[in-house]
Amino acid sequence: MRLHSAILSSLAHHRITSRFRQIYSLQRPANATAPMATSEDSLRRALAEKQSTIDASGNTIRQLKSSGASKSEIDEAVKALNALKLEKTSIETQLKASISGDANGSVMSRDAFRQAVVNTLERRLFYIPSFKIYRGVAGLYDYGPPGCAVKSNVLAFWRQHFVLEEDMLEVDCPCVTPEVVLKASGHVDKFTDLMVKDEKTGTCYRADHLLKDHCKDKLEKDLAMSADKAAEFKHILAVLDDLSAEELGAKIKEYGIVAPDTKNPLSDPYPFNLMFQTSIGPSGVSPGYMRPETAQGIFVNFKDLYYYNGNKLPFAAAQIGQAFRNEISPRQGLLRVREFTLAEIEHFVDPDDKSHPKYSEVEKLEFLMFPRDLQMSGQSAKRLCLGEAVSKGIVNNQTLAYFIGRVYLFLTRLGIDEERLRFRQHLPNEMAHYAADCWDAEIESSYGWIECVGIADRSAYDLRAHTDKSGVALVAQEKFAEPKEVEKLVITPIKKELGLAFKGNQKMVVEALEAMSEKEAMDMKSVLETKGEVEFEVCTLEKTVTITKKMVTISKEKKKEHQRVFTPSVIEPSFGIGRIIYCLYEHSFYMRPSKAGDEQLNVFRFPPLVAPIKCTVFPLVQNAQYEQVAKNISRSLTAAGISNKKDITGTSIGKRYARTDELGVPFAVTVDSTSSVTIRERDSKDQIRVSIDEVAAVVKEVSEGRATWADILKKYPAHTSASADE
Amino acid sequence: MRLHSAILSSLAHHRITSRFRQIYSLQRPANATAPMATSEDSLRRALAEKQSTIDASGNTIRQLKSSGASKSEIDEAVKALNALKLEKTSIETQLKASISGDANGSVMSRDAFRQAVVNTLERRLFYIPSFKIYRGVAGLYDYGPPGCAVKSNVLAFWRQHFVLEEDMLEVDCPCVTPEVVLKASGHVDKFTDLMVKDEKTGTCYRADHLLKDHCKDKLEKDLAMSADKAAEFKHILAVLDDLSAEELGAKIKEYGIVAPDTKNPLSDPYPFNLMFQTSIGPSGVSPGYMRPETAQGIFVNFKDLYYYNGNKLPFAAAQIGQAFRNEISPRQGLLRVREFTLAEIEHFVDPDDKSHPKYSEVEKLEFLMFPRDLQMSGQSAKRLCLGEAVSKGIVNNQTLAYFIGRVYLFLTRLGIDEERLRFRQHLPNEMAHYAADCWDAEIESSYGWIECVGIADRSAYDLRAHTDKSGVALVAQEKFAEPKEVEKLVITPIKKELGLAFKGNQKMVVEALEAMSEKEAMDMKSVLETKGEVEFEVCTLEKTVTITKKMVTISKEKKKEHQRVFTPSVIEPSFGIGRIIYCLYEHSFYMRPSKAGDEQLNVFRFPPLVAPIKCTVFPLVQNAQYEQVAKNISRSLTAAGISNKKDITGTSIGKRYARTDELGVPFAVTVDSTSSVTIRERDSKDQIRVSIDEVAAVVKEVSEGRATWADILKKYPAHTSASADE
Repeated sequence: MRLHSAILSSLAHHRITSRFRQIYSLQRPANATAPMATSEDSLRRALAEKQSTIDASGNTIRQLKSSGASKSEIDEAVKALNALKLEKTSIETQLKASISGDANGSVMSRDAFRQAVVNTLERRLFYIPSFKIYRGVAGLYDYGPPGCAVKSNVLAFWRQHFVLEEDMLEVDCPCVTPEVVLKASGHVDKFTDLMVKDEKTGTCYRADHLLKDHCKDKLEKDLAMSADKAAEFKHILAVLDDLSAEELGAKIKEYGIVAPDTKNPLSDPYPFNLMFQTSIGPSGVSPGYMRPETAQGIFVNFKDLYYYNGNKLPFAAAQIGQAFRNEISPRQGLLRVREFTLAEIEHFVDPDDKSHPKYSEVEKLEFLMFPRDLQMSGQSAKRLCLGEAVSKGIVNNQTLAYFIGRVYLFLTRLGIDEERLRFRQHLPNEMAHYAADCWDAEIESSYGWIECVGIADRSAYDLRAHTDKSGVALVAQEKFAEPKEVEKLVITPIKKELGLAFKGNQKMVVEALEAMSEKEAMDMKSVLETKGEVEFEVCTLEKTVTITKKMVTISKEKKKEHQRVFTPSVIEPSFGIGRIIYCLYEHSFYMRPSKAGDEQLNVFRFPPLVAPIKCTVFPLVQNAQYEQVAKNISRSLTAAGISNKKDITGTSIGKRYARTDELGVPFAVTVDSTSSVTIRERDSKDQIRVSIDEVAAVVKEVSEGRATWADILKKYPAHTSASADE
Repeated sequence: MRLHSAILSSLAHHRITSRFRQIYSLQRPANATAPMATSEDSLRRALAEKQSTIDASGNTIRQLKSSGASKSEIDEAVKALNALKLEKTSIETQLKASISGDANGSVMSRDAFRQAVVNTLERRLFYIPSFKIYRGVAGLYDYGPPGCAVKSNVLAFWRQHFVLEEDMLEVDCPCVTPEVVLKASGHVDKFTDLMVKDEKTGTCYRADHLLKDHCKDKLEKDLAMSADKAAEFKHILAVLDDLSAEELGAKIKEYGIVAPDTKNPLSDPYPFNLMFQTSIGPSGVSPGYMRPETAQGIFVNFKDLYYYNGNKLPFAAAQIGQAFRNEISPRQGLLRVREFTLAEIEHFVDPDDKSHPKYSEVEKLEFLMFPRDLQMSGQSAKRLCLGEAVSKGIVNNQTLAYFIGRVYLFLTRLGIDEERLRFRQHLPNEMAHYAADCWDAEIESSYGWIECVGIADRSAYDLRAHTDKSGVALVAQEKFAEPKEVEKLVITPIKKELGLAFKGNQKMVVEALEAMSEKEAMDMKSVLETKGEVEFEVCTLEKTVTITKKMVTISKEKKKEHQRVFTPSVIEPSFGIGRIIYCLYEHSFYMRPSKAGDEQLNVFRFPPLVAPIKCTVFPLVQNAQYEQVAKNISRSLTAAGISNKKDITGTSIGKRYARTDELGVPFAVTVDSTSSVTIRERDSKDQIRVSIDEVAAVVKEVSEGRATWADILKKYPAHTSASADE
């Protein structure tokens, strides 16, 4: 089943990798919704036109009546009016469908689909609301047994696919983080959401959520709204993330938005830091936070890791771990939670050489990409060849592209439907100023397109921030084969003269002079040489000062250099593991009728790699001999490291298959003799007959992906038996 | 090398599983140190005797001199005195050695050994003090690349050995925990250490640490101390954990203990809660904590997990995850940290039937056990057969014994030396009142015996605590094959009469009446029948009230029951993963001379299961052909899931072997031709020759434990070559 929902996607667009307010956004960019918006706009216009025609027609009838027209004349007009009303109803239906995203005639609405998935997940304990017996805590979930197994399989594959195959340095740092680290990264000052409070009860809400809900609600329910008004609300939805506290507050006032639960007035919006704060040690003077991401633990270890790698670039470090965000009011179930598992990679690379040695392994890949220009011009994502995207300059560099390709392979091998996976480039206003290029792997779910992996070229920003704050140089060296002669700018402020002229401000002026770029300095030099003095803006003083010839010497000197010292760039693929798993659940779920046709059965079509249990073992009937065979097979599977489950209840074989289909178990061994057994594949329901001695090896081979079911089907006789079928 | 340290072990005795003050102990029980103490006592006595002989001898010489004795007579006496002094020095040396635990003539002192291990671990980034560039935070450590790989191998084996082989239900719950849960578990009120503050600077210390340091310091340095005084200090060390705040404060005053850094006076001891506190959501009214253990997440899910298991007992749930303890002043490096990984199992069982179906698989195991009576009578741990320990009633029940056996197998397969592993039973004063029996797996390290796994039968305590607090019955049912007739106590308070008599207190009296045990109720019944009234203590009112015959009816009724409803007992094996790994490092570390004999080389003898990297691949010389072969072999190993590392530096092969020995890499492939290569085993340094096509399969087989090195040695020709040897 395909789910399509353009507007709803805005709900889910949550940046897990972007670090600060300007990019910590919930909102898709304005123009990306344009294609769908166009059809919706035209429906709104058609509806408004129809309404005026109806109004006019009503007036006509009233005039006819008052002017004493003939009954047949009036009847004719009423008939026309009713036809118009029918047409209006039809447009309204289309408009509603267009707004809710169910316009494509899907069999089941996306809400009903989600409900079916979530019911199955909760009933089979894939997840459990945490601390349920105490009425739970919003935004906290447990993984129950099958969910936990899926998670551990996803992480094991992540380690194989990235850490092992790419030779990455995996680290494991604590969650408790001292303030100084998160001060340097900017989280203490900028990792905030804007909040409003119910002025009477003190209940808190996210300001942008309330404004968004208001706009969406109006758009969905007020069908008679003018196209202009609709455009206004849509514009707000599009720029929601760029609104300042003042702008948000003004809009909330303008629309008369009140607290949703009490209808009380709301406070002005103010920033709330999203980190869980705590205190390290007993003294109360060492503030700390639960880390909002795992990346900082890697950055602060750069020096040691670079040394471990033999002082060579490029190299990548990786970390899997818990991260924490104290959301103001979590929504969207498993997609926006207060504690989650991140898997992050920091690939350190020479900023002057972002080629990748294994680039050729991904450059021929083709998949849905959504570059900036397609978004800005209102088009949809397109299948592009990754190599072409690099050569055309759409993707900034080879290393970034290499990771995009590897992420594509990772997600599709897990079982993500490649038709519902796209790589969307950040628009300039979404990216941090220092970032070179960013792409999100977005997966379409019933909530819309969900950002599940962010792949960003963050340039040298993070290492520089920690260098500045810690005083430890987080840099790399490139030794030259032979010394190079370089021309170097030398700026020498004459402190005595500057001191006389600027007294207490001397330090700021000196720093500003030393911080000049080569061009600025050479310009100043030439002005000083011709005019003897120059006006110079000192940012830290917020004013312009006069610099004279005596105050500074500027020259270029030739020097021999033996090495180049530089801050590496970092390319950061960051994976929201819980989001990937949730999307995988939706992409794997389907329903099929039972054999009797009297009920719909749920199935998760997990690939063996991901399946929480690889195989079930059933004795066909309750019988000591068969049970012993089942026990032996189960034991040999366990010894081979294949997770399996026996079911020796007397339940009908069909019911037992249905139970395990619902857990996504790919293979079922049914013991119906003491010499050979059947193996049944979940999705095709095909069965083969295999001797007892071979069964564990066959299941292991196909579970570990060393053979496909098709390979196995060719080698073993098919089994068809009414009794062993559902 | 064997390390022996009896007194030092007290340093390390930290209960990771015990939950409250009375059992959150650092201290070995008094009598357990007795064997060593005995020899130390006799040395102290010998020293004191020698000193008095010397004093007497000195007096004699002075008398001889003053009485004008002959020079030869005086010389003789001085010679005797000098001999006595020499003997004293010898006793002092023995005493020092006895105190510091180096009495067994080990080649290297335990401090030097630890330093060698820790230096290697830090240099090779097995671990890194967290946030080092910001001068770190006490008690927080990162796992660097090899440490992270070891940890992930240990956890993968834990999952295979426990979760998969025992069919456990694994769950994964958040670290952030609301207060109500930890209120129910008792952590909010009782999970504390006693702290004292420097009265001038406010620096905090653990009160028991200061007292312990004082006692240990005196015992070590004051060799002339009387045996009585030494016994007093030892007694304090032994009962340290049982001391109340008042008693600790009194001792600190008595001994004049001051702040170690400033010599300032100290405050009285007061409790400090060891949980990291935070606030959930923006309102500030929902306190939460970072979980101090993972167990509570399992208990609160009991109902769902029991249902998932088909409403059948026994079953076990397991969880691996981070836990947090805001230690007052962390010491002992990696052994006492503020954030650590726990792996916990909660095995739920019918309290009336603690047999275990797989008990026969462990009952023949023999290993060092240290039951209560051996500790109390001052003996050492003994090799015991697990099955006998159960049949003699030393271990409380089969299920507890089964887990002790499984833990033994787990630890020894990881590479823990079984001679330095013992299972120590808790003394009655160490156990919580509700616990049926507790055993700790203790591993001997340079810090002494370290508790690494706790295995406790906690009876129904935890489930009952959450039932009481949440109002959700965490119970199991046993359906009877046919209904049973049982006699049931029925207590019916007559509310009208009670209301007249006790007004506002009526509710408390009713509750107290209903809460009576069968015996209390039947006693009351008989008194009421004879005397017409009875004095009855109502705890919640803190007074005794008079109950008359009219106020309550008590009877026994026969009822048919179809099922038994009960709270399961829980057996909890709880693993401190970081501690196990640290002990494994010490047990795996050794040094051997280089071939030239000019230096000592470090080796970790990790089994392949644990080794961070399974195999290195070296071209013997720098050469494009060999490098290509090395690349191909490395790639095929990676594809087979075998972690490996190429080293194509031109460094000598001996140095390259030494580098990887230090990381504990068990196998090294050296490419010295384009048709076949050598495989070298780390500890024996044996080499075999294997064709290029086979090498990945051979390394995989021996790395995954499907063949031993001895098996491989038989199958392939040995290789001896000066150039490829170190």
